[in-house]
Amino acid sequence: MPLHDLIARLPAGAVLTDPDLLATYRQDWARDPDAGTPLAVVRAGSTEEVATTLRWAHEHRVPVVPRGAGSGLSGGATAVEGGIVLSTERMRAIVVDPVTRIATAQPGLLNAEVKRAVAEFGLWYPPDPSSFEICSIGGNAATNAGGLCCVKYGVTTDYILGMEVVLADGTVVRLGGPRLKDSAGLSLTKLFVGSEGTLGVITELTLRLLPAQPRQSTVVASFATLDAAVEAILSITGQLRPSMLEFMDGVTINAVEDELRMGLDRAAAALLVARSDAPGEFAAREAEIMAAACEKAGATEVFHTEDAEEGEAFTAARRFAIPAVERKGALLLEDVGVPLPRLGELVTGIAEIGARNQVTVSLIAHAGDGNTHPLILHDPTDAANTERAHRAFGEVMDLAIALGGTITGEHGVGRLKKAWLPNQLGPDVMALTQRIKDALDPHGILNPGAVL
Amino acid sequence: MPLHDLIARLPAGAVLTDPDLLATYRQDWARDPDAGTPLAVVRAGSTEEVATTLRWAHEHRVPVVPRGAGSGLSGGATAVEGGIVLSTERMRAIVVDPVTRIATAQPGLLNAEVKRAVAEFGLWYPPDPSSFEICSIGGNAATNAGGLCCVKYGVTTDYILGMEVVLADGTVVRLGGPRLKDSAGLSLTKLFVGSEGTLGVITELTLRLLPAQPRQSTVVASFATLDAAVEAILSITGQLRPSMLEFMDGVTINAVEDELRMGLDRAAAALLVARSDAPGEFAAREAEIMAAACEKAGATEVFHTEDAEEGEAFTAARRFAIPAVERKGALLLEDVGVPLPRLGELVTGIAEIGARNQVTVSLIAHAGDGNTHPLILHDPTDAANTERAHRAFGEVMDLAIALGGTITGEHGVGRLKKAWLPNQLGPDVMALTQRIKDALDPHGILNPGAVL
Repeated sequence: MPLHDLIARLPAGAVLTDPDLLATYRQDWARDPDAGTPLAVVRAGSTEEVATTLRWAHEHRVPVVPRGAGSGLSGGATAVEGGIVLSTERMRAIVVDPVTRIATAQPGLLNAEVKRAVAEFGLWYPPDPSSFEICSIGGNAATNAGGLCCVKYGVTTDYILGMEVVLADGTVVRLGGPRLKDSAGLSLTKLFVGSEGTLGVITELTLRLLPAQPRQSTVVASFATLDAAVEAILSITGQLRPSMLEFMDGVTINAVEDELRMGLDRAAAALLVARSDAPGEFAAREAEIMAAACEKAGATEVFHTEDAEEGEAFTAARRFAIPAVERKGALLLEDVGVPLPRLGELVTGIAEIGARNQVTVSLIAHAGDGNTHPLILHDPTDAANTERAHRAFGEVMDLAIALGGTITGEHGVGRLKKAWLPNQLGPDVMALTQRIKDALDPHGILNPGAVL
Repeated sequence: MPLHDLIARLPAGAVLTDPDLLATYRQDWARDPDAGTPLAVVRAGSTEEVATTLRWAHEHRVPVVPRGAGSGLSGGATAVEGGIVLSTERMRAIVVDPVTRIATAQPGLLNAEVKRAVAEFGLWYPPDPSSFEICSIGGNAATNAGGLCCVKYGVTTDYILGMEVVLADGTVVRLGGPRLKDSAGLSLTKLFVGSEGTLGVITELTLRLLPAQPRQSTVVASFATLDAAVEAILSITGQLRPSMLEFMDGVTINAVEDELRMGLDRAAAALLVARSDAPGEFAAREAEIMAAACEKAGATEVFHTEDAEEGEAFTAARRFAIPAVERKGALLLEDVGVPLPRLGELVTGIAEIGARNQVTVSLIAHAGDGNTHPLILHDPTDAANTERAHRAFGEVMDLAIALGGTITGEHGVGRLKKAWLPNQLGPDVMALTQRIKDALDPHGILNPGAVL
């Protein structure tokens, strides 16, 4: 039995086979009901253990699903029946170099832990998925994760200078490194960012850091119509670069207010939370410009604060939106994005899709970069309702593609969205993708069923 | 004769075969004496003409060397005997979208032209190679070009959101696009950035833009020793993020002073030019911190100005360094970089290599990101001197590799440095690179002899 061979090659305790434990590694936060049961879970403690696992899997043609913290929302870490789940959760070292402003981090560290480690040196790792307290930096790299600060600071790939990655056959390679500029050879580092475990397993990351973020000013504005909110968004991005520009629709406002009771306007069609982190008094000046843009677009209420804690409370409310809506029912969670000028069409189109399919859609958005999260509520015990929800789920992606957008701005394709990927990329890009996949993973053992 | 077939498929005048004209397309700025004479030069006016050329070349297995403005310094556009030089110089359209803060640009536009076009909308395209007035944006993307602002603003890949690219067989694909976030499928856009024409021909770029750069404060400091200058550099990067941090050694200072007569200290071992573009009075504050760091490190003279024009004069002097040194003799131009903490070892090691080989080396550097340009002067009519210069050229790259650095920070590998690439990347990364190359260009027609 080949699994015994793998167990023998790894340290005691690294391989889990207990059925109760295996069950906890079957799904990620996408909660795919079709998840398989893995043959075993390998909790690798080192690069060498990852390599050993992949050499074994390559030899025996066993599927391997790489897994970070399991907080993915697209089913990228859904277990494959009879395969190995290869978890990096135990690989948690980090070293910070404040002179070069970089950190070398293992993949199992949580995003929040990276932020805290570098903050001790007065530095900042910007990418901030709403799940930053529970998602791993390795998973962030694998999905090219985003967050709230991306409208000003870009996404994960913008902060990855290098990595160590284990290829499908167990070969360990180092790509890029602690050099702020490097044009030697192909940009392989960047190819592995966002590859969702289909090309290799990331075992170390070299992260670019920024000086600590300055204190932020915050604007909160309510709108009676979606159109007015979108007008304010485009007016703001046309004038300056906010450090955050977040949107919640009426359904979301009410779900959050139900939980947090912070006095949000339940009658509003939309709420914007905008922030500026320009130095010194420039933050307040930018906040004034943003507040004026909201007023000019017809905001019913505009609130402006220099108090960082007060601003953080509204940011936390926005981050809490998905858990708050989740308490209303089961969710199909989308991640569609469009070029900013098409944002209005996307927002109103999503509302129409919800109405036409008679399902409730809660809409939140990283509005400043055109990335939205429609949350489609449904009742899994009601077959007809669930069917309508799934139809709406597909129609939202079709709409985003029709508007020149993307089916996923920051969560990745995983398994949930892969049926729509060819419609976005087209046959030639799909063929190009497959050629690279075949070149790097000829036996197709790495995360089979994800993306492609 | 197949060339007649290509001529027939393209508009009149697109294909050059006149020997005098062909001669002007044989070399780029690397002036490779071993450049071949192309069969023809195609000056494509559209994506379709690029595709037509590649379909023909693919069918007849004819090598194609893509060429932007021909200002490359590594021989990436050196013509291959009997091949096609495919120039994008006529593809010069640009469209700016100020709401999304992006521009869609064709590859033949010069970097400076992109900067000027977006400046009309109050926007800024940051990457700024010293050659920005004569290098093309397509070439910038193909080499992942850098410049002076990279210490704060990153390199070309950080500003490319999407592209249209023609593959080896003439297939036209669109990758990424005008979306600030997009995790759908592999990061193919980033793979083509820095691929030096070996994977495809870029025919359009979607560029991310920033708000106009604020006015900069400038610090100029002279040092009696290289060590003192390096100490100041590391002290500055450990405290803040300058918008520019440039270095010239004594040889370079004298060459620039010979041409510009601006009163630089000819006795200095090194000169630093550092700038801050923090908003408002924060620029002056950062400049004060940088000036203090230089003084503490033992600078013999420190000059600090808030006058943007005066600061620009010193920046222009730094940009003029390569042409100024070139007037002293023929140059072998390097582009080595190291992790910042190793910068002192690189700088002193380069001086030792020059002394040991009895060749004059002028050293300039984008010091803040550890990227240096040693310029090795030699006399091509003196065989022994030229041989020593070439030996020093290799030794500098060996040193950079030994220090955990790169043989090229921003110019690309091209043909001049490819013999050293395996030493930097190692056999496994070279094999990985070759697998991707073979998957995308199975007949090896794209820029053969470059990089690999």
